[in-house]
Amino acid sequence: VETKLPKVGTTIFSVMSQLALEHKAVNLGQGFPDFEPPEALRDAVSRAMAEGKNQYAPGIGIPKLREQIAIKTERLYGHRVSPDTEVTVTSGATEALFSAIAAVVRAGDEVIVFDPCYDSYEPAIELQGATAVHLPLTLPAFAIDWQRVREAITPRTRMILVNSPHNPSGAVLSRADLDELAAIVRNTSIVVLSDEVYEHIVFDGREHQSVLRHEELAARSIVVSSFGKTYHCTGWKVGYAVAPKALTAEFRKVHQYLTFCTFSPAQWAFAEFLDSSPEHYLELPAFYQAKRDRFRALLAPSRLTLLDVPGGYFQLVDYSAVRDVDDINFSEWLVREGGVAAIPLSPFYETAPDTRLVRLCFAKNDATMEAAAELLCKL
Amino acid sequence: VETKLPKVGTTIFSVMSQLALEHKAVNLGQGFPDFEPPEALRDAVSRAMAEGKNQYAPGIGIPKLREQIAIKTERLYGHRVSPDTEVTVTSGATEALFSAIAAVVRAGDEVIVFDPCYDSYEPAIELQGATAVHLPLTLPAFAIDWQRVREAITPRTRMILVNSPHNPSGAVLSRADLDELAAIVRNTSIVVLSDEVYEHIVFDGREHQSVLRHEELAARSIVVSSFGKTYHCTGWKVGYAVAPKALTAEFRKVHQYLTFCTFSPAQWAFAEFLDSSPEHYLELPAFYQAKRDRFRALLAPSRLTLLDVPGGYFQLVDYSAVRDVDDINFSEWLVREGGVAAIPLSPFYETAPDTRLVRLCFAKNDATMEAAAELLCKL
Ligand SMILES: CSCCC(=O)C(=O)O
Ligand SMILES: CSCCC(=O)C(=O)O
Repeated sequence: VETKLPKVGTTIFSVMSQLALEHKAVNLGQGFPDFEPPEALRDAVSRAMAEGKNQYAPGIGIPKLREQIAIKTERLYGHRVSPDTEVTVTSGATEALFSAIAAVVRAGDEVIVFDPCYDSYEPAIELQGATAVHLPLTLPAFAIDWQRVREAITPRTRMILVNSPHNPSGAVLSRADLDELAAIVRNTSIVVLSDEVYEHIVFDGREHQSVLRHEELAARSIVVSSFGKTYHCTGWKVGYAVAPKALTAEFRKVHQYLTFCTFSPAQWAFAEFLDSSPEHYLELPAFYQAKRDRFRALLAPSRLTLLDVPGGYFQLVDYSAVRDVDDINFSEWLVREGGVAAIPLSPFYETAPDTRLVRLCFAKNDATMEAAAELLCKL
Repeated sequence: VETKLPKVGTTIFSVMSQLALEHKAVNLGQGFPDFEPPEALRDAVSRAMAEGKNQYAPGIGIPKLREQIAIKTERLYGHRVSPDTEVTVTSGATEALFSAIAAVVRAGDEVIVFDPCYDSYEPAIELQGATAVHLPLTLPAFAIDWQRVREAITPRTRMILVNSPHNPSGAVLSRADLDELAAIVRNTSIVVLSDEVYEHIVFDGREHQSVLRHEELAARSIVVSSFGKTYHCTGWKVGYAVAPKALTAEFRKVHQYLTFCTFSPAQWAFAEFLDSSPEHYLELPAFYQAKRDRFRALLAPSRLTLLDVPGGYFQLVDYSAVRDVDDINFSEWLVREGGVAAIPLSPFYETAPDTRLVRLCFAKNDATMEAAAELLCKL
């Protein structure tokens, strides 16, 4: 069998979760909480099943949920969207990202991505016969070098893919970044794809600079988010895409043939819960900031150097004081010998720099964080 | 915004369901039951949520569910598959079909499909930069003309896509058909994609001729099925693909970046329910045969001519005694004036023949069938 994706193996998230299982390690690798979604939300799913919401939802998502997404978008970002023509519910953010890329990017096109970048972007781009143009984020802050972006633009540039809060670093875009981006794409046909799945997880009083706050950018962007990250149910696979009408029309053409719709009962549950409990997402920054601070305090005595975490639910650590090996070797050693699963950074680079960084997920209960920290402090 | 899919509009299923809603028509269009999945299955989903099965499942599906799929496959088709390397759980059959096509079909390739063909196939093929080669099924039995298939094979033929029981006609492939197919693909690199979502719905004592019964074909096929069709929960979006190891490896490369995994709690529920209640799928032919027979009896006094229904849950009817208009016009008139939503056949053809056929779904309660039949008998 010939392969269409010669560079692709099993995603590092699956590999590390499997190793964590085999070695009974504390799994701080793949990004998911080890606590539960709100009971009211689970009950609402059960109720929706009992009420007969078990057949196909409309492919674009049930109206009530699209309305709630529109309400949230206006409330948080001051951006008004039409639930009917600008909001589409998807089978998680992964499907939304794939559908967006498949709908917009043509064979021969270039898509600018920033390394380290989430590992699903490039295969989705390659499957279109297009090329991912990788630009490195500037360390230590994982910032975008806009001058490099300007230089990388060609007549083939079809899309720029940004991600804020950024996975794995937690870096967040500023208003100035959005202005730079807007200036670059002005008078071009470049579409912005903005992965904002950690939109509600920003710290130290920051405001999430959604592309949707920026009217000029919003008019040419597809913005992707995820209920899995926000409601502690990464396995439920409900996400969505917000985009202006013409882009949404193209997006939906692909989405309807990719998955058609996502798990109906959860759509009803989210519609109800967003309406009744907006405090859940409003309180999320404080909820995760407490976890971040606790995790950092627990790791303070270790020989790991902790990088700043402006957003998201991952802590990058520099392990160079512990071992002088590359991050893949370190991660394998750590899960086997250290009892903790982490995610190495190099799989998120086209050309990995010589850093000594791995990613640890702190979307965990105190007990899990403490168990992990005890092991990590022994290194 | 330029379009990558110039021929694609909103899928006819969404269009007709929307019209049914607007006109308060009895919806026999889009294929879904109006009765519920087994209570034990819904309870198992609730239990899985309560037990904390709310985070990412393994991308390929939970081991227990893949095992149950392997057990069912061996039991029904005498074909042994490895749950680890040959079974992948997907976000419904639609995602499985898309992943299979994206994994195998390259730009410039040709894929042979049979008209009328399910409307997601061609867009998925076109998004690969490949071409769907449409061959008409031979009326009235909707049979494959194997001589035409032989003539359509070129060095670019990469895949043949078969669908049995066939949607919309209910036609089923015979062992002789599988032998013909095997002879055609022998000594080529053609992959067979077999859409068998109605595998458990075959009538009058027929045996479903899964491609998996045919060892030679099974060795080069991706076989797709759906729990939504079998367990009356089309909105749950759990399907799967069975394929030999090398094809499964390619399939998973795409699947992991398309949706990663599907709704975890339902995976646990299906694993449990397949194990405890295999009688559900064993009794499905009788269950749907009774519905088919009831529906046909109800329509007997009408001016519609009923075509044979060997499998699936759709009844094709010839409406030429009622109105002399094309099927799109007839369907629009029927939903507006007749109070019943049906699916016209022409959207499933590259070049629609001059038939007067529409599709009616009989996966419905008695009351729904009776209400529809009363309206249809008035035409
Ligand atoms: C889909 S598995 C990966 C989950 C995730 O977003 C991460 O760990 O970064
Ligand atoms: C995904 S909506 C279409 C459902 C279906 O399989 C049909 O009606 O044929």
